[in-house]
Amino acid sequence: MYRTNTCGELNINHVGQEVTLCGWLQRSRDLGGMTFIDLRDRYGITQLAFNMETNTDLCNQARKLGREYVLQAKGIVAERSSKNNKIPTGDIEIIVNELNILNVSKTPPFTIEDVSDGGDDLRMKYRYLDLRRTPVRKNLELRHKVAMLTRNFLSSQNFLEIETPFLIKSTPEGARDFVVPSRMNPGEFYALPQSPQQYKQLLMVSGFDRYFQIVRCFRDEDLRADRQPEFTQIDCEMSFVEQEDVLNTFEAMIKHLFAEVKGLHFDTFPRMTWHNAMKYYGSDKPDIRFGMKFVEINDVVKGKGFGLFDNADLVVGICANGCAEYSRKQLDALTDFVKRPQVGAGGLVYIKYNADGSFKSSVDKFYTPEDLKTIAEKFAAKPGDLMLVLCGETMKTRKQLNELRLEMGNQLGLRNPDQFAPLWVIDFPLLEWDEETQRFYAMHHPFTAPKPEDEPLLDDSQQWGRIRANAYDMVINGVEVGGGSIRIHDRTLQNKMFHTLGFTDEQALSQFGFLMNAFEYGAPPHAGLAFGFDRLCALFGGADSIRDFIAFPKNNAGRDVMSGSPSAISDEQLNELCIDIKKVE
Amino acid sequence: MYRTNTCGELNINHVGQEVTLCGWLQRSRDLGGMTFIDLRDRYGITQLAFNMETNTDLCNQARKLGREYVLQAKGIVAERSSKNNKIPTGDIEIIVNELNILNVSKTPPFTIEDVSDGGDDLRMKYRYLDLRRTPVRKNLELRHKVAMLTRNFLSSQNFLEIETPFLIKSTPEGARDFVVPSRMNPGEFYALPQSPQQYKQLLMVSGFDRYFQIVRCFRDEDLRADRQPEFTQIDCEMSFVEQEDVLNTFEAMIKHLFAEVKGLHFDTFPRMTWHNAMKYYGSDKPDIRFGMKFVEINDVVKGKGFGLFDNADLVVGICANGCAEYSRKQLDALTDFVKRPQVGAGGLVYIKYNADGSFKSSVDKFYTPEDLKTIAEKFAAKPGDLMLVLCGETMKTRKQLNELRLEMGNQLGLRNPDQFAPLWVIDFPLLEWDEETQRFYAMHHPFTAPKPEDEPLLDDSQQWGRIRANAYDMVINGVEVGGGSIRIHDRTLQNKMFHTLGFTDEQALSQFGFLMNAFEYGAPPHAGLAFGFDRLCALFGGADSIRDFIAFPKNNAGRDVMSGSPSAISDEQLNELCIDIKKVE
Repeated sequence: MYRTNTCGELNINHVGQEVTLCGWLQRSRDLGGMTFIDLRDRYGITQLAFNMETNTDLCNQARKLGREYVLQAKGIVAERSSKNNKIPTGDIEIIVNELNILNVSKTPPFTIEDVSDGGDDLRMKYRYLDLRRTPVRKNLELRHKVAMLTRNFLSSQNFLEIETPFLIKSTPEGARDFVVPSRMNPGEFYALPQSPQQYKQLLMVSGFDRYFQIVRCFRDEDLRADRQPEFTQIDCEMSFVEQEDVLNTFEAMIKHLFAEVKGLHFDTFPRMTWHNAMKYYGSDKPDIRFGMKFVEINDVVKGKGFGLFDNADLVVGICANGCAEYSRKQLDALTDFVKRPQVGAGGLVYIKYNADGSFKSSVDKFYTPEDLKTIAEKFAAKPGDLMLVLCGETMKTRKQLNELRLEMGNQLGLRNPDQFAPLWVIDFPLLEWDEETQRFYAMHHPFTAPKPEDEPLLDDSQQWGRIRANAYDMVINGVEVGGGSIRIHDRTLQNKMFHTLGFTDEQALSQFGFLMNAFEYGAPPHAGLAFGFDRLCALFGGADSIRDFIAFPKNNAGRDVMSGSPSAISDEQLNELCIDIKKVE
Repeated sequence: MYRTNTCGELNINHVGQEVTLCGWLQRSRDLGGMTFIDLRDRYGITQLAFNMETNTDLCNQARKLGREYVLQAKGIVAERSSKNNKIPTGDIEIIVNELNILNVSKTPPFTIEDVSDGGDDLRMKYRYLDLRRTPVRKNLELRHKVAMLTRNFLSSQNFLEIETPFLIKSTPEGARDFVVPSRMNPGEFYALPQSPQQYKQLLMVSGFDRYFQIVRCFRDEDLRADRQPEFTQIDCEMSFVEQEDVLNTFEAMIKHLFAEVKGLHFDTFPRMTWHNAMKYYGSDKPDIRFGMKFVEINDVVKGKGFGLFDNADLVVGICANGCAEYSRKQLDALTDFVKRPQVGAGGLVYIKYNADGSFKSSVDKFYTPEDLKTIAEKFAAKPGDLMLVLCGETMKTRKQLNELRLEMGNQLGLRNPDQFAPLWVIDFPLLEWDEETQRFYAMHHPFTAPKPEDEPLLDDSQQWGRIRANAYDMVINGVEVGGGSIRIHDRTLQNKMFHTLGFTDEQALSQFGFLMNAFEYGAPPHAGLAFGFDRLCALFGGADSIRDFIAFPKNNAGRDVMSGSPSAISDEQLNELCIDIKKVE
């Protein structure tokens, strides 16, 4: 062993002991008679002291060392004259009597400090140096902890972690697969799993009863901000359960994680139907850390001669408490916000309920103070509040108002990352209409069961959009951290579902045949759920971006700029795989 | 919840309780007045009882159910009249008063019993049914347990599990990569990792100090028996450690697993140099459950006129205790065994040391009884023993004799799968000469450090074959379960190593540039090791084949016959990826 102790563990109780430490030179201070070096390892920082008078050679040697040199220092633990109470080792220092340079270092391209002077691109290129920074290291330590807690919790609940294959069959349904050419089977390809969905259902058919896996998944999508081509899921499935059992099991898991990681304890998580989530928050993942619920005011605004409202499917708004003093400039900024192409609203109507009880609105021309008072009552607004109203086609308007609500939440400081508001969203629609391809798609996936009471609607294509699924999402702070559903375990219903999705028998058989065959041999009722593990860790870490909770992330072009991947491969490799690169014209 | 209890937990203490169970119909017995059904789930089997007299309808219904139907049964726990002490629930049965068929089943293509009538191919095609069989389920339960124990042990030792990428850069050195075309970067490819080797070394550069990961790895090799294109490793790396620290850490881990999984406790594992392993066992993974060490007899057999021995580099044999009575037929069979192409010996010499003290050998023509007595003394043979001798080129002969030794071990019942003999093999050669390409290859990998005392030999290409590495394997029962090495952390030495392996600067830079760059910024001394997790589980399970410890394995052509993967993909997918299938001429 190169060391007797780590840089994080020595304190006043160790004074007088001879120790050997290893680590990186964080910084050095040359105070004439004395030179001090902060030696850093994963566990902490310990001060090394070199005395010019008593050990001139060693002190001179210490003065020549650069940042990030790897050192081994032997010496005696001594009490410091000036203590540092910010670090656990701040009461002591090491009077060094032997120093070995284990490795030298070039000057790093950015500072290895909590707040670095390196930009994103530079830090990604030198990710191995970025990972030396305490905040990034702590993120990965948190991730390890969450993974261990998750596994031990689920294992204690009789879940078995079972590894499913990474080289699987490509299925065109859903997102795009990454594929892997098979050298031994020329012209044929494996796919990397978008999730172990079919395998975990097979494991239920096999009687495994409770399965989980913390598993890498892959999606070849055009990457939006904060999406990664490979990501990690906590993937789970259970047999002989109803929706209530699944929600209780995984609510208990998340509560356990909150208690162990954050010291936070929760009552039963609230539940909201998808329908209400859309109606009151304009989102299937509402952030309920704050109120500002949508208020629909069709009944009180129509027929007063304001054409925009009169012609709208929906007139809906939010009430921002205490914002009646918003300036013209602030209101213009909000109008600009909703008119941005990303939001897409035509405009914004405001109604100020002034502190003196009077009203001021952008629609004063059409509405009397009494009208506005009636509207204010719908909003339960008080003097000093500001009402913000959008109108138009129902779903579009709701989504626009959702953006505005979140923006107001940000502006008013109502979205504290240290506060957590978990929520189940339930009763999702089974099917989603796609304008482009003019067909219904499974909102969750083709194995999701309709609610039994809605099953008859499958026989009437006019009703397909109204069918509710036994599907559920866990939402925390406006982020979908997990989701799942009761599965179809009956082959007849599964066939009907495939037909609804426009699959011919041949297509269904060629893509999902093995699962459908399996269902003929005694599939139990089963259900499951998957959590986005990267996202969950970022949430626990109080961060918006998942990137710093992944050791070696890729950029938005799917590139790892550190290793230079992807890259060209040799003609020999291509030949062996029987593939050619197509010339791009 | 569909059930109140599982099929494995009810016993005499539950008599009188009303319970609901779910599971699969294992078998049913119709005894006229009574019908019994064995209901099976993951946790056990419980007997359901139906009385024709007291509940005719239900009993008639029960009689119509087929094997593997999925049932829900409600009833009262009752004491059995004829108990079955082979199962934990054998004292009780359920007097059923309500029965629901949750799903029907076609008749399975093979019996779902501990010993099935299904052949390998059929069981693989219907793997989801094969997994219902208790022995296969128990293998995966064992795997889960070993994984949990491993993670908790390493975590308690301050190891962090850190996930490394699956979409990485292709490196031609070593085995063949599986590659993944990048749609967003046309003409470029990711590779799937053969191991996270470079990433775990980067994590050491990053200061993570102790890393592990139970991780899938991929190798596109022509599959020999019991190899899988994807396999799982326990991958580990540590900083500021010497070989002694690594061996102690992972010896402790394996001891912990043996204690928890098998209830077995071990003293310090023996260590053997690679040189001695080859000399005394003809293998770098000797099975030391039994002796039969090689005895070299060049000095006593040469110069007696037996040309085969006289001209051989090495004359070496083993002594099989108590086998002097082997018949002509048995000896011929052994001769045939060593002459098989897989072994490749020219022939076999035997010397029987008969119980009466006389000798009988296949070389009596050349050796007097006194000569044979001298040989026997070299072998420390006793009357009743049989000596088996091979000769020829040193390494080839050793490998042939290794095969013969293992065969004799099998024949004599010395390789008991319930007995475990762990061993460290150390001091592997750094480099291995390849006749075909006429160059040296890294025996372990290009980052393995030579022993410091052998480092100067790198400057003399005549000596390269003699350089020993700080590399080590853990061997249990003749199976290499893990291996690793001290890594080179010095860039100058790493460069020298690359040159030794015939890499130009450009090749080294293009393949390993990011790791070499990282080494310029303060790489700590580090070392690591990886265990073959599938193999380790098979060993603990007392099985030779890893296949039944993998939920969904592939066959020797790399195919999953259940899902039909790999398979053709659509032209649209190929177009998006900018690749063509090459016509095979």
